[in-house]
Amino acid sequence: MRSPRALLGIAECFVVVLTSSVAAAQPSEAPAAPISKQSQACIECHEQVTPGIVADWRTSRHSRITPEAAAKKPALERRISSTDVPESLRSVAVGCFECHGLNPAAHKDNFKHEIYQINVIVSPNDCKTCHATEVEQYGTSKKAHARGNLAGNPVFHGLAESVNGVQELRDGKLVSLPSSDMTQSESCFGCHGSEVVVRGMKTVKSDFGDYPVPDLANWPNHGVGRVNPDGSLGACTSCHPRHSFSIAVARQAHTCGQCHLSPDVPALEVWEESKHGNIVQSLGHEYDWDAVPWVVGRDFRAPTCAACHNALLASPTGDVIVQRSHDFGARLWVRLFGLPYAHPQPKSGDTSIIRNKDGQPLPTTLDGEVASEFLLDVKEQAARQGEMRKVCRACHSTSFADAHFARLANTITETNAMTLTATKLLKRAWDGGLADRSNLFDEPLEKKWVRQWLFYANSVRYASAMSGPDYVAFKNGWWDLSENLRVLDEAIRAKSPPEHR
Amino acid sequence: MRSPRALLGIAECFVVVLTSSVAAAQPSEAPAAPISKQSQACIECHEQVTPGIVADWRTSRHSRITPEAAAKKPALERRISSTDVPESLRSVAVGCFECHGLNPAAHKDNFKHEIYQINVIVSPNDCKTCHATEVEQYGTSKKAHARGNLAGNPVFHGLAESVNGVQELRDGKLVSLPSSDMTQSESCFGCHGSEVVVRGMKTVKSDFGDYPVPDLANWPNHGVGRVNPDGSLGACTSCHPRHSFSIAVARQAHTCGQCHLSPDVPALEVWEESKHGNIVQSLGHEYDWDAVPWVVGRDFRAPTCAACHNALLASPTGDVIVQRSHDFGARLWVRLFGLPYAHPQPKSGDTSIIRNKDGQPLPTTLDGEVASEFLLDVKEQAARQGEMRKVCRACHSTSFADAHFARLANTITETNAMTLTATKLLKRAWDGGLADRSNLFDEPLEKKWVRQWLFYANSVRYASAMSGPDYVAFKNGWWDLSENLRVLDEAIRAKSPPEHR
Amino acid sequence: MRSPRALLGIAECFVVVLTSSVAAAQPSEAPAAPISKQSQACIECHEQVTPGIVADWRTSRHSRITPEAAAKKPALERRISSTDVPESLRSVAVGCFECHGLNPAAHKDNFKHEIYQINVIVSPNDCKTCHATEVEQYGTSKKAHARGNLAGNPVFHGLAESVNGVQELRDGKLVSLPSSDMTQSESCFGCHGSEVVVRGMKTVKSDFGDYPVPDLANWPNHGVGRVNPDGSLGACTSCHPRHSFSIAVARQAHTCGQCHLSPDVPALEVWEESKHGNIVQSLGHEYDWDAVPWVVGRDFRAPTCAACHNALLASPTGDVIVQRSHDFGARLWVRLFGLPYAHPQPKSGDTSIIRNKDGQPLPTTLDGEVASEFLLDVKEQAARQGEMRKVCRACHSTSFADAHFARLANTITETNAMTLTATKLLKRAWDGGLADRSNLFDEPLEKKWVRQWLFYANSVRYASAMSGPDYVAFKNGWWDLSENLRVLDEAIRAKSPPEHR
Repeated sequence: MRSPRALLGIAECFVVVLTSSVAAAQPSEAPAAPISKQSQACIECHEQVTPGIVADWRTSRHSRITPEAAAKKPALERRISSTDVPESLRSVAVGCFECHGLNPAAHKDNFKHEIYQINVIVSPNDCKTCHATEVEQYGTSKKAHARGNLAGNPVFHGLAESVNGVQELRDGKLVSLPSSDMTQSESCFGCHGSEVVVRGMKTVKSDFGDYPVPDLANWPNHGVGRVNPDGSLGACTSCHPRHSFSIAVARQAHTCGQCHLSPDVPALEVWEESKHGNIVQSLGHEYDWDAVPWVVGRDFRAPTCAACHNALLASPTGDVIVQRSHDFGARLWVRLFGLPYAHPQPKSGDTSIIRNKDGQPLPTTLDGEVASEFLLDVKEQAARQGEMRKVCRACHSTSFADAHFARLANTITETNAMTLTATKLLKRAWDGGLADRSNLFDEPLEKKWVRQWLFYANSVRYASAMSGPDYVAFKNGWWDLSENLRVLDEAIRAKSPPEHR
Repeated sequence: MRSPRALLGIAECFVVVLTSSVAAAQPSEAPAAPISKQSQACIECHEQVTPGIVADWRTSRHSRITPEAAAKKPALERRISSTDVPESLRSVAVGCFECHGLNPAAHKDNFKHEIYQINVIVSPNDCKTCHATEVEQYGTSKKAHARGNLAGNPVFHGLAESVNGVQELRDGKLVSLPSSDMTQSESCFGCHGSEVVVRGMKTVKSDFGDYPVPDLANWPNHGVGRVNPDGSLGACTSCHPRHSFSIAVARQAHTCGQCHLSPDVPALEVWEESKHGNIVQSLGHEYDWDAVPWVVGRDFRAPTCAACHNALLASPTGDVIVQRSHDFGARLWVRLFGLPYAHPQPKSGDTSIIRNKDGQPLPTTLDGEVASEFLLDVKEQAARQGEMRKVCRACHSTSFADAHFARLANTITETNAMTLTATKLLKRAWDGGLADRSNLFDEPLEKKWVRQWLFYANSVRYASAMSGPDYVAFKNGWWDLSENLRVLDEAIRAKSPPEHR
Repeated sequence: MRSPRALLGIAECFVVVLTSSVAAAQPSEAPAAPISKQSQACIECHEQVTPGIVADWRTSRHSRITPEAAAKKPALERRISSTDVPESLRSVAVGCFECHGLNPAAHKDNFKHEIYQINVIVSPNDCKTCHATEVEQYGTSKKAHARGNLAGNPVFHGLAESVNGVQELRDGKLVSLPSSDMTQSESCFGCHGSEVVVRGMKTVKSDFGDYPVPDLANWPNHGVGRVNPDGSLGACTSCHPRHSFSIAVARQAHTCGQCHLSPDVPALEVWEESKHGNIVQSLGHEYDWDAVPWVVGRDFRAPTCAACHNALLASPTGDVIVQRSHDFGARLWVRLFGLPYAHPQPKSGDTSIIRNKDGQPLPTTLDGEVASEFLLDVKEQAARQGEMRKVCRACHSTSFADAHFARLANTITETNAMTLTATKLLKRAWDGGLADRSNLFDEPLEKKWVRQWLFYANSVRYASAMSGPDYVAFKNGWWDLSENLRVLDEAIRAKSPPEHR
């Protein structure tokens, strides 16, 4: 293996070879995009030191089309939304330096690597250069605010701490220590996103000598609400992973399932059990996962998460069914995820601003009264349900879709009632001194209550929303909802003085 | 988008175009089947208003071959079993109206839609027009009776109610309300099948104006024992979903897994863990999922649920290994699913007629004595095991298969013993007044007992039957069987007066 | 169907046909390998009596290439490592008799079948004839010793017995009977491997008459540490199943997942949730699963278990990234699997020799002190981590990989601390007479302690090692670690005299 420094000198003579091998590897839908001199230099070394990254990029659309050519596509087929891509980027492939060299002044993780100034992390603010609409939509969503909505909410943060802190015995009693940054980053903030902090520079030893690189805390991380070293929120790689930036991967249910998993958010598993998931798992190999727009019946038949929640869908006759949105709540009216009750979707993606009637940063009171001021009104709920109905209607009758929605509404009412009953039982325990409400989440009785809404009621609702019968019934479903209530009741009685049992 | 009413007038001029596009999209194994005038009219509108349905149908065999041509296939390749298909259906594709227009007098959900009388639901009785043998086999199976076997059995129905009913606190005590029809339809009856009731007509608003449609209760639903508006039992779409009626989908394990999932029936997960599932998940993309007969070694290698339980299998040399059956119990001798004990398969698919020695509608007494009169005798059990052995023998030696069966028999004995011990413990609690036997399923102690047989013993048996070692051991397996017994014992002792602890 | 005995006589005339049909079915990369006379005889009958086996073999590399031709491949592409393949085997396909006829004197399961002496089980010692390096590597690994490491360790064996034994009520008390061989073989030893014992001969009845065959106990079984009738350890078919001996199957995560599943070893599920798994599940159909060496970026992009843990990986430029090893611990420095604490990997694959400071056959004391003498020292740990880092480095920066390893190290420390706290609680119960330490695993309090390390701490560690955030947090993760500790504490208090609550 030649040293990367030696290779830098001979980078340019490889250009033709590289470009043509890309063209050979991929069906060429456009003349191969020229690679910039800077990115060529990156590739020369990294093809040897991190060959997987380079090979991944070579499979990407970024490697094959220039922003200029991409912008000339018919509007419905276009994947680029910015109209002001800088001149210097327009006519080259979207290569290493085109992304990692952007906005250096904003990036605390910018550093000199060989002869170029680059950033470790490419942030949504960088992607915005070409994908402005998508980044703007995403920026207003709950996803972009996922870190702050957890870290900045004392109630939820308390729940996270009661889960992630190491517990020790002190004077015979369990004491929970503050959770470590490292554990947080791979636990709750593994999905919600960490705050990546640049602690300074450090030296990395490699086969080619020592390299100075930024010393990043709380990284690697690709949580959806990651706070980046340029201050922007999010990680486009959450769903378009690594260097292929694939729309096909983003449309697969597995991708969403990295975070939307049981027991708290069993979206992936419920979908897998549903007829939709059944069909996709059986016949998905026949689908065209890359097509834009995504044509119902031609490119795909049964939907994945992306089809219902964010993709631009069209009919075979070319009519738009729904527009693309990177605010993944744009077609949602109700928030199934109970905190502790299911409730109308919040108006703002930043939910840390919500205060319920009792002053708590929760969308409902502990008794279930909604904090209406911060939540969608009835009209907007209807509008969003209307968007979702359009998706359903591509394959189902209005009558079918409406009956489905009515059933979901009933499920929300009933599961909220089951949470309310659990809350009443817990309040009895708190009031009777059998549990201590100073921390809502750390005692066995309280944890049973959390299970009721966070695991069981949520599972039933997700299962109702996507028709996964086993999750309604037995897999963290009604079986558990009803059993847990009986067990909670009995546990409280067992701790009560005899006259209250 | 043109209005559907306008389109009706120009339907016929599209025929040639439509037919040829179908031919182009699919490998033509026969001359394209002509589409009836009625179905063309449906397609003209629905290609716009529900494009997914039409596109799905276009991928189906129904769209490509007439019943007449299908009936001319060699016997082993034939997918149509009726010999008396009405003249009017014989020489056209099996399109919208050919199915939705059948037997109008029998259908309470028949209504006039535009210019045709159609049914919302196509029932097994309708499918029987071409698939008589399959519908007859299915009709005698436990699947067809799945709703009645649950709803019509007071013991099982009581279990379902104790799971699905909303619980409220009244005078400080938990009270379970009757479960709602909507929850039942998506919970237990999501798999078992709902009773679809026509409440009258209602008006649906669409972009094309108001449409009168039947108002159906307990729908959508595609449970295997659905009671249809024509009185027939079942939903062929449970396994051949939506409008592609695909045999390939029905042969995939995901399809069965929509209902046969842990914790009560972990067939899918056990299979996925098994060597069979391992191989199919690794190499299944090389299989021919559509071939009839399904040739071992040529079309597929390791089996899915369908291969062992119902498909017509042949050897590469053309010998029939086993005949197709749509009674999915036809190759089963023992019923692993404990109620509460594993027992010989019932003679009739209608199990609500069973009475044990104690008069309960259960295949065994609570002490495990089988209700022999209603269950297969030893000879018939041997015959059915013989059928299954033929499947095993396609890839395994007789010695291998027999050793496997012997081990399963041992597992049944041992897991039944573990259920019996749990039952003895519970009886002690009942007898001692620590639990109330008036409802067998609603108290924490009773729920532990239910877990013993419904979740843990069942898991071990399914895992033994299909060789999924982790489900035998740790995933709701022996670990849980043995732990639950100790926990049940300790819980009873804790509630007992000190002299009985 | 003709009788197999009749067919034996006409076996040879089929040779040409058979050989050419194989050639037609498979892309021929070499002249079709001739089939030996003996194997032809086997095939003639077994193509009829067990057609799946024969068809499976026909898809194998064994059927298409002779050892002689295989040995001439360039070194990096070679799958055969022995240089002393016997003359008689060199120039024929690796057929039935070439494997089942090996080393008859060593095989207690050798018997005369029709006109040949064959063995029922082909063992690693037989495979060694061509694959010496692989079998030697495997033979020193924990996998080969998996049975003895469990059965020969009184502590672990006690755990297995407390799980698998049938429990009965005697004098009102639960008594655990010794577990049966059959249950053991499908439970713990389903993965760890059974000891296959030849009990003598028995007669099997078939359509062609009675056949004498060896009577094997504890079989079928393909656990990784199976004790074979020739005394060798292991089952190559654990990962290269049945008669296709596929490297593609062995590289799929499902294969490892047959045993490495939650709740004790959730490797498969964590990988599925990880970005690696997400990408493979989305794009794996584009990979070349058969290529040797496995080229990062060309043949595959995101890794499966095999890529990180054992495959020979090369870069697109032909550099070796890591060598193949069939000791699956060769790139591992730490053993995540807590017994009860995570600890450095053992020096020997035979862990039954380990003794901790307290004389127990455990790699740590119950307080977490490691049995250093039997475990890798710091230098060897660093060397092995270096091997794994090479794999990471194919796609990630050194900085990325090191930050990942640092986080894992922190997770190990913290989860070990959570196990220690649970152990201290349990010791309090033992010391206070609330539980009986004579058996460490059979009482409810003890089972909660086992859950702490075997299920929850393990899950967090596997999830940290492969970045599956939900398993760190909620799926048997920190939620359960912290809840279980509180529940254990409360359960002990409830059993304690009032002054100690």
